Amino acid sequence: MRIIHKLLIGGILLTSFNALATLESWQGESKRQIMDFVSSAVDPSNELFVPVAERIAVFDNDGTLWAEQPMYFQAIYAIDYIKKNAKDNPKWRDVPMINDILNGTAKDKQYDVKEILQMVMLSHGGMNTDQFSSQVGAWLATAKHPKTGLKYNEMIYQPMVELLTYLRENDFKTYIVSGGGVEFMRVWASDVYGIPPEQIIGSTVKTEYVVNGGKPQIMRKPEMDFLDDKAGKPVNINRIIGRKPVIAVGNSDGDREMLEWSTSGEGARLGILIHHTDSEREWAYDKDSHVGRLDQALNQAKRENWLVVDMKNDWLSVFKAASGKTN
Amino acid sequence: MRIIHKLLIGGILLTSFNALATLESWQGESKRQIMDFVSSAVDPSNELFVPVAERIAVFDNDGTLWAEQPMYFQAIYAIDYIKKNAKDNPKWRDVPMINDILNGTAKDKQYDVKEILQMVMLSHGGMNTDQFSSQVGAWLATAKHPKTGLKYNEMIYQPMVELLTYLRENDFKTYIVSGGGVEFMRVWASDVYGIPPEQIIGSTVKTEYVVNGGKPQIMRKPEMDFLDDKAGKPVNINRIIGRKPVIAVGNSDGDREMLEWSTSGEGARLGILIHHTDSEREWAYDKDSHVGRLDQALNQAKRENWLVVDMKNDWLSVFKAASGKTN
Repeated sequence: MRIIHKLLIGGILLTSFNALATLESWQGESKRQIMDFVSSAVDPSNELFVPVAERIAVFDNDGTLWAEQPMYFQAIYAIDYIKKNAKDNPKWRDVPMINDILNGTAKDKQYDVKEILQMVMLSHGGMNTDQFSSQVGAWLATAKHPKTGLKYNEMIYQPMVELLTYLRENDFKTYIVSGGGVEFMRVWASDVYGIPPEQIIGSTVKTEYVVNGGKPQIMRKPEMDFLDDKAGKPVNINRIIGRKPVIAVGNSDGDREMLEWSTSGEGARLGILIHHTDSEREWAYDKDSHVGRLDQALNQAKRENWLVVDMKNDWLSVFKAASGKTN
Repeated sequence: MRIIHKLLIGGILLTSFNALATLESWQGESKRQIMDFVSSAVDPSNELFVPVAERIAVFDNDGTLWAEQPMYFQAIYAIDYIKKNAKDNPKWRDVPMINDILNGTAKDKQYDVKEILQMVMLSHGGMNTDQFSSQVGAWLATAKHPKTGLKYNEMIYQPMVELLTYLRENDFKTYIVSGGGVEFMRVWASDVYGIPPEQIIGSTVKTEYVVNGGKPQIMRKPEMDFLDDKAGKPVNINRIIGRKPVIAVGNSDGDREMLEWSTSGEGARLGILIHHTDSEREWAYDKDSHVGRLDQALNQAKRENWLVVDMKNDWLSVFKAASGKTN
């Protein structure tokens, strides 16, 4: 598609323009603002033009690209894995949240992002990276979401898949920057979003290079390395990408610093918050939710002119699985 | 160039083939082995074919892409910076190596990679990322190498620039994976090697996201975060790229684990060691050098069939500045 686009500029294949992706599941002011921004960014005569090398767009994952209710899907994976393997790992009960899960009392309690991620990371260690990928792949192939009955990687947002495609066709490099585990996402995210592993950034467990029986491998330790959330997001983007993004998209207070940093400074900058307003097709929640809480960031959006996407009114479809559309 | 290449395959522009990069500063067995490997990797009918998405090539920097004698250039930067700013930072003298430098006794002593990097990192903290980039840029513009009289970023190896270009034109994604500081390299490496910031991986200091006077920024702390050397290299490649490279190139024992991991497993795999054998045009050193020591990795190269490049005999030119060639 990039080649066709460049040929178009050369005036060779003018009839192929409609092959470019459109935001067909979007409508209203959100769609207009996004398209206006991108039109300016790719127009060399516009004062808000962005050179191709600087066209970096970062996306949170949970609640931004796929759903996150009733809890982060990675936590559901972790719980399923823990239940399945608890007998062989008696030490797991030392972690309060795991003990609650095994006792069936976890549902009565609330846990913050850090506790959830700690539980997730602990349950993910003690194996090499290939073994971990296999476990996640096997789970995704069969596990179903309790409310929708869909597979978890079918609960990705069709409008966001269109936005990712639209940006890439306009020479933006799309990245995931998520509080979720980077190796958990890499198992499935490339397929569903078209984002290669090296453009997926997330939280990490400590890993170690070992040679076992002559076979070099990367072992995952049951120990948190870096939490890619809140102020950790700009830190990790600077460390790994080395540029300030031009577009940053999130849905919760965990994305506030990423949007704040990305939209600061000179030139074209776009911050987008996905606001979960659709209790029928998805879930409606913001400042009172224990998962994906959106409070401070929503207030800041008004002050800083971030685009707030109203899922109920701005999106013509929600889940890709249900939309019948392919990109 | 990539577009021309794809059109070529389509049979449209057959006369443009000679526009593709060649390894013109290479000769002999090294050149032949590299070209044979790449020819197989891009040929879908060959059993050693590598899909485009998996064509990842990683390069060490110091001693592999640019020179590293009489000491790592980043250490020379740090020393210059420390001498210039020591009066305003009396605490620096608490670091033994810095104290030695200020007393003029450092030349009589030897320091290992970790000590050098610690000194470098300490001397690089206490400023934001933009300030650091400015400092490095200003130094590069004027500082000259004591032996060659060249600017430091003119002491990059012409054959390696050709190899990077050749690989990219064959749809390899080229990465730097260096013990050097990632933000030090990002100031100049994109220009000289054609590698974008997001494909530069290196050692890091701890950083922190802060909003100072309403301005969001990333502050650099005078504290080591991650040492991207030895076993840290495969760990960092797995964390950031998320794939095992197909080609790994280094020159010292610090690259041993990166080559060992990258060349393990199924399919096409190429490990390359640059052996510094040219005391006239560059420097000749290996197992007895305190900078860029090459000992264990050279022994392992024989056992594992890594390609050992003999700089004296395999390279027709060394420094890009002296070759008069442009890519």
